[in-house]
Amino acid sequence: MVGERIRRLMNPMKPEPRTLHPNVMPPVGPSSRSAVDPFIAMEVVAATNAMIDAGEDVISMAVGQPGAPAPACARQAAAAALEAGDIGYTNATGISSLRRRLARYYEERYRVSVDPQRIVVTTGSSAGFLLAFLCLFETGDRVAIPSPGYPAYRNILKALSLVPVEIETNDETGWVLSADALSAAHRRNRLAGVLVANPNNPNGTMIAPEPFADLLQTARDNALRFISDEIYHGLTYQVAETTALSLTDDAVVINSFSKYFCMTGWRIGWMVVPEGLVKTVDRLQQNLFICAPQISQVAAQAALDGTAEMEAVKQGYVKNRELFLERLPRLGIEHIQPIDGAFYAYGDISPWGGDSMALSREILKSAKVATTPGLDFDAARGGSWMRFSFAGETERMKQGFDRLDAWLKTR
Amino acid sequence: MVGERIRRLMNPMKPEPRTLHPNVMPPVGPSSRSAVDPFIAMEVVAATNAMIDAGEDVISMAVGQPGAPAPACARQAAAAALEAGDIGYTNATGISSLRRRLARYYEERYRVSVDPQRIVVTTGSSAGFLLAFLCLFETGDRVAIPSPGYPAYRNILKALSLVPVEIETNDETGWVLSADALSAAHRRNRLAGVLVANPNNPNGTMIAPEPFADLLQTARDNALRFISDEIYHGLTYQVAETTALSLTDDAVVINSFSKYFCMTGWRIGWMVVPEGLVKTVDRLQQNLFICAPQISQVAAQAALDGTAEMEAVKQGYVKNRELFLERLPRLGIEHIQPIDGAFYAYGDISPWGGDSMALSREILKSAKVATTPGLDFDAARGGSWMRFSFAGETERMKQGFDRLDAWLKTR
Repeated sequence: MVGERIRRLMNPMKPEPRTLHPNVMPPVGPSSRSAVDPFIAMEVVAATNAMIDAGEDVISMAVGQPGAPAPACARQAAAAALEAGDIGYTNATGISSLRRRLARYYEERYRVSVDPQRIVVTTGSSAGFLLAFLCLFETGDRVAIPSPGYPAYRNILKALSLVPVEIETNDETGWVLSADALSAAHRRNRLAGVLVANPNNPNGTMIAPEPFADLLQTARDNALRFISDEIYHGLTYQVAETTALSLTDDAVVINSFSKYFCMTGWRIGWMVVPEGLVKTVDRLQQNLFICAPQISQVAAQAALDGTAEMEAVKQGYVKNRELFLERLPRLGIEHIQPIDGAFYAYGDISPWGGDSMALSREILKSAKVATTPGLDFDAARGGSWMRFSFAGETERMKQGFDRLDAWLKTR
Repeated sequence: MVGERIRRLMNPMKPEPRTLHPNVMPPVGPSSRSAVDPFIAMEVVAATNAMIDAGEDVISMAVGQPGAPAPACARQAAAAALEAGDIGYTNATGISSLRRRLARYYEERYRVSVDPQRIVVTTGSSAGFLLAFLCLFETGDRVAIPSPGYPAYRNILKALSLVPVEIETNDETGWVLSADALSAAHRRNRLAGVLVANPNNPNGTMIAPEPFADLLQTARDNALRFISDEIYHGLTYQVAETTALSLTDDAVVINSFSKYFCMTGWRIGWMVVPEGLVKTVDRLQQNLFICAPQISQVAAQAALDGTAEMEAVKQGYVKNRELFLERLPRLGIEHIQPIDGAFYAYGDISPWGGDSMALSREILKSAKVATTPGLDFDAARGGSWMRFSFAGETERMKQGFDRLDAWLKTR
């Protein structure tokens, strides 16, 4: 009886096929808010992967994808979690022990005391930006970002019906956003907030501690929300890094395990929010993301004990940085923005003529080296700039330059 | 020389401590758009986890968290990926082989042909909703959702400056959204779209194939965007499931590996979008999420070959469903919405008196059984309803009922 009942339950009647009447409306098209620019670097990833799938050997200088894997201890922790099997939902704000461990990380690394309750584990820094923008800004608010800068800032802001206000940096400003430039932009645009990455992407340029404090002070004086993107912290070469948390509890700090801890594909990061936003971010996370991937959270917690391994990886970037600073000029690329941190060389490719978009395509096809056109980071001036990532293995990077040398000779 | 240089690079000057002038502004508070309701189920998760951390034995009937782990083949694939080490960014739309495999899944499971290009791998269904809402709707658009329904629909819509229009279902409508009700709501509210989950959460109730086609036809006739949440497909007990894709190419279909494939904590799902939205969703994904977690993508692809194991898990739900339909009435809960699918019993707890929020808290504390108050799913009427998830192991569920029996006797 029960057996029969279950059989019936398990084999429901298949529906009769049915077709709808024809659609008299035009085909489904995208909303205007979603018509954002492509993140060109990710289009390069797709083109590169298609070539690799077709059996080609492509060297990537395109994305900030470390050549090294996550720390061994992180991978071991993930393997143990897989073995145990129960990979389920966590608290929306993240596994408590990971949040406490991150608080200790701030204590040990920066001598800054942060209440674990203010730390929210996110699905990469990407989710951190979504949460920060939604909780800090009203629809239509204007938010300042530096240009060149990470294109997703601009595009996420647009998609969320916010207005990015790009402030150009240049040789005179040392390619960083100054307090004066922020004030001027605020006078012109009535800003609601400002986002600064330090080190910055695509150039790796850093704001020194004093000007950074000036910037925070200016934001405070004008009641601007301050978002500090600290994703490249740990990867600095000559300027000391400052977390906004050492200066204020009012900033929203975004960070990630992707870069220093080599965990891009794990999609795991964190944010630190002011006391007054904790409940809101928790609720947004519950609804928008549920929680960050559990296995990645477990791995991330272990990764924080893997800094010795990561410092060795960083030595590789130091070598790569030297390599790029030597080899790019030999290719005619001498105007490079200051590489204080991160793992990018952002160079003026005017000596190669042509536009960065076409050149990136040509180089991918002819030299089998993937690069990211500057248009991603600077719509106005990026046509003659290119970002070269040196996050890969040194030997591969050297091979890449050999290919670029050969390519340039054939032009 | 180089050694010294590297040492200097690795040990940058520590910044001087500096403090900002005091803040004359009020403390940072949340934006109005972000003031969404909590997803109460996730608050129950947090309360439950706190009790478990304190050494208590709590039985969860709160969230849709399968008691079983992901298919063994999925966990093996993830372990192999960990071993190989290179867990990096994938294409924004997902690993190509996974998208092709999902197309085959539609072919085999539904006899529906779907171009893999229309399939986008997402970070759980959560990311799917964000992408769908952003690409389909303009700021301020009104979107119909059934009530009771999954609370995140309402809350994500609000956070994205969209307006949820809840359409109440009831005993007369069989707790499903009808074409007539949609038409009426459209006349009153000038809708831009409608979202339907089939089976629905929190009740598991399903729209039969014919009324489902009527609903799609009505949406088409009125040029409403249609989002079909098919996350509980595979978990149906007496009504045949229909994918919107068998009827139209214009709907956006959201699905996930969380439920049928027991992969909640992996945060991995997918969506199928109309041809005209592919490029937009790709670009949004590039900017908003970069890509879904790579290790979860690898595991998900393997999981699609693990249906035999998952069918055995489903047999457990069949047993649990019988158990709940027997034991809840013995507790006085006789008015239960039709459990055609999913793994929830949504019952009218009026016989227990009091409100569902207070009762959920009391039951968690006294009986150590976690449940989700109906207010999560139905702000108007949920005060006297409760969702009981039967996704856990049968033995634990039985223990849970024994505790509930004992609790009820002491009241």
